[in-house]
Amino acid sequence: MFIPRQTKDFINIDPLQTGGILTEDAKRMLLEWGDGYSVCDFCEGSLHDIKNPPIKDFVQQLAEFLDCDIVRITTGAREGKFVVMHSLAKKDAWIIVDSNAHYSTFIAAERSGLNVAEVPNSGYPEFKIYEEKFADVIEETKKKGEVVLAVLTYPDGNYGNLPNAEKVIKICHEYEVPVLLNCAYSIGRMEIKANELDADFVVGSGHKSMASAGPVGVLGMKEEFAKIVLRKSERFKNKEIELLGCTARGVPLMTLMASFPHVKERVKRWNEEVEKARWFADKMEEMGFKLLGEKPHNHDLMHFESLQFYEISKKVKARGYFLYKELKKRKIHGIKPGRTKSFKVSTYMVPKDKLEIVLNAFEEILEKYKHTLES
Amino acid sequence: MFIPRQTKDFINIDPLQTGGILTEDAKRMLLEWGDGYSVCDFCEGSLHDIKNPPIKDFVQQLAEFLDCDIVRITTGAREGKFVVMHSLAKKDAWIIVDSNAHYSTFIAAERSGLNVAEVPNSGYPEFKIYEEKFADVIEETKKKGEVVLAVLTYPDGNYGNLPNAEKVIKICHEYEVPVLLNCAYSIGRMEIKANELDADFVVGSGHKSMASAGPVGVLGMKEEFAKIVLRKSERFKNKEIELLGCTARGVPLMTLMASFPHVKERVKRWNEEVEKARWFADKMEEMGFKLLGEKPHNHDLMHFESLQFYEISKKVKARGYFLYKELKKRKIHGIKPGRTKSFKVSTYMVPKDKLEIVLNAFEEILEKYKHTLES
Repeated sequence: MFIPRQTKDFINIDPLQTGGILTEDAKRMLLEWGDGYSVCDFCEGSLHDIKNPPIKDFVQQLAEFLDCDIVRITTGAREGKFVVMHSLAKKDAWIIVDSNAHYSTFIAAERSGLNVAEVPNSGYPEFKIYEEKFADVIEETKKKGEVVLAVLTYPDGNYGNLPNAEKVIKICHEYEVPVLLNCAYSIGRMEIKANELDADFVVGSGHKSMASAGPVGVLGMKEEFAKIVLRKSERFKNKEIELLGCTARGVPLMTLMASFPHVKERVKRWNEEVEKARWFADKMEEMGFKLLGEKPHNHDLMHFESLQFYEISKKVKARGYFLYKELKKRKIHGIKPGRTKSFKVSTYMVPKDKLEIVLNAFEEILEKYKHTLES
Repeated sequence: MFIPRQTKDFINIDPLQTGGILTEDAKRMLLEWGDGYSVCDFCEGSLHDIKNPPIKDFVQQLAEFLDCDIVRITTGAREGKFVVMHSLAKKDAWIIVDSNAHYSTFIAAERSGLNVAEVPNSGYPEFKIYEEKFADVIEETKKKGEVVLAVLTYPDGNYGNLPNAEKVIKICHEYEVPVLLNCAYSIGRMEIKANELDADFVVGSGHKSMASAGPVGVLGMKEEFAKIVLRKSERFKNKEIELLGCTARGVPLMTLMASFPHVKERVKRWNEEVEKARWFADKMEEMGFKLLGEKPHNHDLMHFESLQFYEISKKVKARGYFLYKELKKRKIHGIKPGRTKSFKVSTYMVPKDKLEIVLNAFEEILEKYKHTLES
């Protein structure tokens, strides 16, 4: 059975997908290593120690790239968060989370039996996380129970806001609370140096931002936490309990490895991506859309308020689906079916000429339905 | 960066790998769906409900195939075991495990904070699990604490023994202990009908036995356990906590789907595979190797004692590696480097003419080194 992918030759501005598009090298790996358990040809007991293919060497390079003492491969950012939370969890304990956190941060905490205290954002239209608020929330929470971890979403996946991680970490460390940076939208796009930031943990996503097939991710940590988070089985001395022995035992890891040299290069061009995103945002605002989140914006993930589209949706037969349908006709993928009031896009690695096509599409759609707003 | 796979054109008798070799359809899926998060093009919130690609439909077909009330996609058999154990875990509780269990069964229990009581096997040379012993172990263990689950490895990955699952389940149910069948080496090879066996849970592995890229697996359960194991988040109403929202969000799932029609057909030819395995075992025993595990054997995974090779290894320069090296020269993959005293092979889906080559290789190697044993 073969199932074709409908969006294959579309312009892709889906924030979930722009950073996970495979490099040519990664594509070649797919067929070479596609068979189940192929990476385990010469395994001696742990995935990160396999020498052929050179996973061990790759994990060491990854540790350098992330400026981390220790790195492990996971099946994604959420699984990395769960590994850390589940390891640090205690009865009735708490974690501190910024309120722009991804849903999986809350769920990982719920699965670990941890209570969650939220650091609120500044609300509409910027939804900023003020770093100092971490201090207030930690102080309040400490009255209720032990605080075992703080999670900062860097950036968040709703607005693409980048709080000052260094400042948050400094504050949390004053209260002796370790910090995990959720870098699902940064590792592989921007340079992230964990030790330089003094982050205790970082998690990244291969399929979201490292040009990899899913599911695969990375988890970096300071040496001092390895004895807890990477504790080994009593009975099987070389097996790390929280990894259930091995995690991403398959071809996604090989695509991550294949794309890694490209990823190392592309993070150096991050400034160009930010500039392009700002250019795109300016053009969108000229058309009357409103950029939510930080201004000027510091990331390719952008959330636009689009009340014109919402007004149109009330008047047309396709209702909320008209925008999706119009974009589909133009072979543009990435805006969720049904959305009109606001929507997220990512300009990451999308060439400017393709973005012009997207901008023109929005303009055409506004023009096409202008009359509905006048009636 | 491209890394070639060294064993690509080898005859593969690695028990980890024979059931996970991709079908041609699955290979075509790799390039089509390789990009990270491609399966999420039209996701509305949960992986198993995605209609395009038809994951929802596939999951329903899988439930029929496994004769299960409810099925979920996981990243592998071990992750399925952990999902169940972590859901059922209570303070100071116990699980019962056959002593042929895979290491990841013990680790999943350790990660869940569960104590493990073992049902011993019969020891050398058959290592059989006697079903009635589950009753003794449950009775003994109940004195120490609550027993929340029994796990039966069906078959185990060391000897390929297939205990009488129905009988074990009946015994456990008399003590009101639910049973999980670890079918990593059976689902996708043999027909497994969970409700017919009255199994409460079954786990399977895409990369091990369902002709899929890794990591991907299946978890089936009885309806009554869904409210515990698939409980949803308080805050995110459509997210299942134990799955962290979504699991195998990537191309391995598409290969599982592509191979599924083939897998449904191949399980019907299981008898032929057992016959071929027995034929292979007979030939091996004619050469003086001794089949461990059940006799006659009921599975393609076989463990042979090979004391002749062990004796040779003491006399040759390459020591324990001589066998691996000789097989490598002959382009035969699957016996772990360093092993000589005993080794595991799988004949699953390996054509008889290739198995003849393997048998001849063993014979040649014995012949080549015969003189070392005479000196």
